[in-house]
Amino acid sequence: MSYLDHAATTPMLPEALDAYVATAREVGNASSLHAPGRHARRHVEESRERIAAALAARPSEVIFTGGGTESDNLAVKGIYWARRAADATRNRVVASAVEHHAVLDAVAWLERHEHAEVTWLPVDPAGRVRPEVLAEALSGGDVAMATVMWANNEVGTVQPVAALAALAVGAGVPFHTDAVQAVGQVPVDFAASGAAALTVSGHKLGGPIGVGALLLGREVECTPLAHGGGQERDVRSGTLDVPGIVAFAVAVELAVKTQRETAERIGRLRDDLVERVRQAVPDAILNGDVDRGRLPGNAHFSFPGAEGDALLLLLDAQEIACSTGSACSAGVAQPSHVLLAMGADDARARSSLRFTLGHTSQVEDVDALIAALPGAVERARRATAKSR
Amino acid sequence: MSYLDHAATTPMLPEALDAYVATAREVGNASSLHAPGRHARRHVEESRERIAAALAARPSEVIFTGGGTESDNLAVKGIYWARRAADATRNRVVASAVEHHAVLDAVAWLERHEHAEVTWLPVDPAGRVRPEVLAEALSGGDVAMATVMWANNEVGTVQPVAALAALAVGAGVPFHTDAVQAVGQVPVDFAASGAAALTVSGHKLGGPIGVGALLLGREVECTPLAHGGGQERDVRSGTLDVPGIVAFAVAVELAVKTQRETAERIGRLRDDLVERVRQAVPDAILNGDVDRGRLPGNAHFSFPGAEGDALLLLLDAQEIACSTGSACSAGVAQPSHVLLAMGADDARARSSLRFTLGHTSQVEDVDALIAALPGAVERARRATAKSR
Repeated sequence: MSYLDHAATTPMLPEALDAYVATAREVGNASSLHAPGRHARRHVEESRERIAAALAARPSEVIFTGGGTESDNLAVKGIYWARRAADATRNRVVASAVEHHAVLDAVAWLERHEHAEVTWLPVDPAGRVRPEVLAEALSGGDVAMATVMWANNEVGTVQPVAALAALAVGAGVPFHTDAVQAVGQVPVDFAASGAAALTVSGHKLGGPIGVGALLLGREVECTPLAHGGGQERDVRSGTLDVPGIVAFAVAVELAVKTQRETAERIGRLRDDLVERVRQAVPDAILNGDVDRGRLPGNAHFSFPGAEGDALLLLLDAQEIACSTGSACSAGVAQPSHVLLAMGADDARARSSLRFTLGHTSQVEDVDALIAALPGAVERARRATAKSR
Repeated sequence: MSYLDHAATTPMLPEALDAYVATAREVGNASSLHAPGRHARRHVEESRERIAAALAARPSEVIFTGGGTESDNLAVKGIYWARRAADATRNRVVASAVEHHAVLDAVAWLERHEHAEVTWLPVDPAGRVRPEVLAEALSGGDVAMATVMWANNEVGTVQPVAALAALAVGAGVPFHTDAVQAVGQVPVDFAASGAAALTVSGHKLGGPIGVGALLLGREVECTPLAHGGGQERDVRSGTLDVPGIVAFAVAVELAVKTQRETAERIGRLRDDLVERVRQAVPDAILNGDVDRGRLPGNAHFSFPGAEGDALLLLLDAQEIACSTGSACSAGVAQPSHVLLAMGADDARARSSLRFTLGHTSQVEDVDALIAALPGAVERARRATAKSR
């Protein structure tokens, strides 16, 4: 099996799994006052410190959650609610058109259910939000919060987060960024970014699924999604998942510590993959940023005349695992909103495949892809031609 | 260490941890279309079937969540929102006064933030909601949803869920029940209960923290808390925690399969504990239902003249772990809302301690408690008398 879908989920690091198991063998609710509870609490606070140190946040800014989707929803809805409650004239949400569905659909719900006004920020052909576009959107003075992802999950384009956040800060608007795909791939410095809130997910960087964090500036008001025990600064109630949090911290620390060498290694492997795909299928089109400014593990192509879904299954039959886009919307036969926002037409959007590399990727994975790809593209094109 | 706080969290079953590890060593996002993704999906669907079978639900009624607090918030807010959207005259939430904070605070937020009307159902001195009290609350025709827990987390009182749910069904009102403390302790049959929604949590029954489920009738409309990939009938988005879900299913199945013998064993141990506490501290008052109708692992006492917090710490110094109430509100020096609702005065509520037994409990745990308790009570009484 050649696993070229690390952006959907990447294998759990052995160090993280070991930490999970060691901690899960203990007992204690981190909210309990007795010795086992205090011991569990120490695990949580040490993990909080490790994550804060790795991402240049203060420990008190780390809010543990159940993962990226929850963090995104908490940031988008929670900051919107809190801001609107403080100032009813701020009823607008600003979001890029290429966000992950966890942000996209949270924003759409605020529009539908909470009567928010929404400005969708267009992107350039590389998938990037230009700062002047955000500046324009902020100019009305009615914005409650803004959200632009750190790096795109489909095409890997890295956004100019610091420039965007600076504009938001200047306009007095809390800025959230979904950094689920970025941490461990590119340097992520919460303090330097200027963001008010930042989403991290465990299973995208070698930690467990079902654990993540929202980095949330101390001064940023955020209405909870889940009320109850009042854990995590009263922003996110629920029993703290001590083993999961410890494993998550181990993974974040390792991913950040090895980020530069991993990025160099998988970046070279990715460049090799891109080059060889172009040789094998000369009319393949590389989507996203062709130069720097993209995640090192990401390669995203359109194969004109072939359906991405068909290609995915043909490659799967040869034990190559890749994706047509985000795993979350897989199975739904819709062209990618990301590619459409980048100016691709429907046919090009539908003909695309994403290959993403990660910590276990080797050249043999690329070899297997290149061996299978030309035949798969040819077959998919014949099938597509027939069905027209 | 004598761990007498299983209601806060109970040790993970070795079988569940093994299942977690075996699954975490695989890779695959359950939403991916390729072979590793389909394999992950099979794990999820098999787990869903096992949990459904154990709790007499249909597989499609099992919505995986991040735990009890999330399930409670999703049920209370989601069903309220959906019902109000369908019929604006239904703007009332009915909840018992003894709910866990995950329900209590979710309801309070709906009142504060969403302008819901709320009826808090009083309880009798044993902590039980009388059906006629619910009938009265439903009579106005303006109720969007009702929620009464299966069994209380502090005093262990089991509610007449079937009778309450039948009244709600008769009034056309979706009925939710928080069964976090009940599953594995008493028989829980979702179909027979008549409830529209039921909360289960992993770590209260030997599964992992951070995983739970909401059993949700097929026909029950529920607005999501977290939007995104559209997993779980579009009610709960977020990457499915495959290892956590597999481990959760193993734990639910085992807890339900061994429920009767566990209940008998720890019920006897608990009766022994109650008897010996009464001998050791003759003026101790057993709170909750003194007869049947309480969880087999629960014993809850007031020790007149002693502060519960002081007692907890004095016992902790002798390596006995117990609780003054719910772990989630531990640390906050407030008298228990449960005991106050049962008619206790402030002093009695503050003088209470909860001892809860579980699958690892042995007679030695009770022996250790009885050896330490009289001295601790005496010391706590002296400290309390001094501070007055």
